[in-house]
Amino acid sequence: MSRNKEVTAAVVTVGEELLSGETTDTNAAWLGRKLASLGVPVVRRWVVGDDAEAIAAALGAALAVADFIIVTGGLGPTRDDLTRPAVADFLGLELRSDPEIVADLRNRFRARGVPELPVSNLSQAEVPSGARVLPNALGSAPGLLIEHDGRTVALLPGVPREMRGIVEEVLEDIIRDRFEGRLVPLVHRTLYTTGIAESVLGELVDEVRAGLPGEVDLAFLPGLRGVSIRFSTRARAPEAAELLDRAQAVLDPIVAPYRIGTEKGDLVEAIADVLERESLTLAVAESCTGGLVAKRITDLPGSSVYFRGGVIAYADRVKIDLLGLEGAVLVENGAVSEAVAIGMACGVAALLGTEVGVGVTGIAGPGGGTPEKPVGTVWFAVALKGRTRASHRVFSGDREAVRERGTQAALLLLYQMLADRT
Amino acid sequence: MSRNKEVTAAVVTVGEELLSGETTDTNAAWLGRKLASLGVPVVRRWVVGDDAEAIAAALGAALAVADFIIVTGGLGPTRDDLTRPAVADFLGLELRSDPEIVADLRNRFRARGVPELPVSNLSQAEVPSGARVLPNALGSAPGLLIEHDGRTVALLPGVPREMRGIVEEVLEDIIRDRFEGRLVPLVHRTLYTTGIAESVLGELVDEVRAGLPGEVDLAFLPGLRGVSIRFSTRARAPEAAELLDRAQAVLDPIVAPYRIGTEKGDLVEAIADVLERESLTLAVAESCTGGLVAKRITDLPGSSVYFRGGVIAYADRVKIDLLGLEGAVLVENGAVSEAVAIGMACGVAALLGTEVGVGVTGIAGPGGGTPEKPVGTVWFAVALKGRTRASHRVFSGDREAVRERGTQAALLLLYQMLADRT
Repeated sequence: MSRNKEVTAAVVTVGEELLSGETTDTNAAWLGRKLASLGVPVVRRWVVGDDAEAIAAALGAALAVADFIIVTGGLGPTRDDLTRPAVADFLGLELRSDPEIVADLRNRFRARGVPELPVSNLSQAEVPSGARVLPNALGSAPGLLIEHDGRTVALLPGVPREMRGIVEEVLEDIIRDRFEGRLVPLVHRTLYTTGIAESVLGELVDEVRAGLPGEVDLAFLPGLRGVSIRFSTRARAPEAAELLDRAQAVLDPIVAPYRIGTEKGDLVEAIADVLERESLTLAVAESCTGGLVAKRITDLPGSSVYFRGGVIAYADRVKIDLLGLEGAVLVENGAVSEAVAIGMACGVAALLGTEVGVGVTGIAGPGGGTPEKPVGTVWFAVALKGRTRASHRVFSGDREAVRERGTQAALLLLYQMLADRT
Repeated sequence: MSRNKEVTAAVVTVGEELLSGETTDTNAAWLGRKLASLGVPVVRRWVVGDDAEAIAAALGAALAVADFIIVTGGLGPTRDDLTRPAVADFLGLELRSDPEIVADLRNRFRARGVPELPVSNLSQAEVPSGARVLPNALGSAPGLLIEHDGRTVALLPGVPREMRGIVEEVLEDIIRDRFEGRLVPLVHRTLYTTGIAESVLGELVDEVRAGLPGEVDLAFLPGLRGVSIRFSTRARAPEAAELLDRAQAVLDPIVAPYRIGTEKGDLVEAIADVLERESLTLAVAESCTGGLVAKRITDLPGSSVYFRGGVIAYADRVKIDLLGLEGAVLVENGAVSEAVAIGMACGVAALLGTEVGVGVTGIAGPGGGTPEKPVGTVWFAVALKGRTRASHRVFSGDREAVRERGTQAALLLLYQMLADRT
């Protein structure tokens, strides 16, 4: 298939609040990914205000560069909502009130205890001649589909969940039917890593990059919990899988030491798998992370099976009174030290009667750093049935970044110790 | 000043990754707010791929609708980066290598241990004839400012912190000078509320809306921690303050019972103020929130002054052994109950020797609900020097929403109890 026969999409977003920055346009990225995965890549986007002339200008320009145009926003019931008349006018279509939509709106309002349909909402029942109505299960503005001069135009509400609902419930199938045989979907896979910097991972990948199939694109997606490598290709089913397999075979040996082997790359899920399988119970003691390690662990539904609880030992007194650390150990080593991290891990396991304990102590900043122990220093330890392992890192970034990174590092040590054991 | 003499801006964003949705365009919202606050509202936006023709088409359309055009992205050193030549070509300007930029790039690379400047980076030193160079302290691509036919075009890097750096370091002043006397900035204020639903707040505000100055716009910004009301106006300094004062006088009585009176609307800061002022110490005991309450409290630097620590009593055994709850109380009332929330608040205050204790217990879901206590039920209690207060709510939303909302509700009860006391 030649490149110039490729089916392409364009998106026009309508909304003053997106221009003023009051709202971040999350629809755009979602639509970009969704349409690429369907095989209709977005080639251009416009954002315009609540202005009929601007909507028409953008639609005209979009019709010139793409086969499939989505216009989102401006379908509400107020005077500001101009998408319906602006598009109908530009395409030379008449607007007619659709009795089914009127009946549906009336029912919606009755269900909310409003007996009379507000007059302003009647505009939401207007349909350009020849347009197909796309039902909106989640709101009052239905979508509309218009065929024009060999192009397809879809008008969708701007409310993200309503827009997504219509795309996934009805529009996906329409796109597949409409452009049947011409779609080359973007297919991708993600390898999740943690414990390695993006630049270092990038250098390792550069060394093997020549071995990757040329049709496969790589993207590094860094976050506070690790760096993901997303590799993608635009190809039909069997060929796509084969290309991604070849790419993964090249990347796997590089990534293996840092890879989180769960489907979504969630370290907490990987930990949960081992704890459940081995019937182990867990407790945590945290200082600088102040509850974040326990929060991460309990983000996962069902964590009560293995997680007993924890102690947030923010004050040194709590480390001594509850976790059984000796005052002398704190004085000699300082609260941020290997001895204290290990003491916290062992102490909380003993206190809560668990097989596994985690201890974290550090300096999250912005204050409290010293030349020997700068802000960002975090010690973390794991105790597993009497065996202990500890490590430390000096993280960069602000208080939030140090706490997130310290938590991730502690969870990684826990995961590694559990994995080595099995 | 008549509306049609208003200075307006347009933004062209260049980057394939924004069309494919691999990256969410955070620059757009930031620029929208920044330019509005300077008095140059954004009236239209384009997003185009790494394609010279598309960049030129967007720039041409932008020049037709705005006085000030920002083009972001596509200034990097690779073949994909086409903004510089595409813009120069479209405006009929010649590109010339700027020796100062070359020297600066060479120094940057030397500092990183690369003795020879890579040939590809030389493209970043090319400047369209007549353009002004905008220094980029944070990256290798400087910004460029071009005057064209009474319009001003700024080319900026797409990396958010570099783009923001150039805008705040140099471009803001340039805009103020360039459009002196013609700028009418958008000025806004925010009232932060918590503990009231957006729809209810909206209805209360509707009752007084007629009393608001017509020049003032209202926006409701809902989040998991509460709903903020942002009210704004476009006016010059003394008039703007007067309009906002009038609006606030109308809104204040409505909002007062739900308002968080700190500058950024952070409940944790408001709590910290009282605890510090009154020299009170705090401990928390949490079950369903699993560390989130303590995490929120310790998000604030300096929280160690009043926060001693806490117990995450995920298992009932921990509630009994550490917090001193009686097993019979748990059996009779269930773990999610007023008695247990109060027992946890009192228990943790006694255990850690603090004046104030907080207890939270609930069903975050998705499992564990019953007809009497559905998923989303959260009981929270505060003990303050022996006095206790408890409350419960049934929150909607998923596990994350229930945990966030339960935490916020517990913090609100704590704040109210502390505020009533003083």
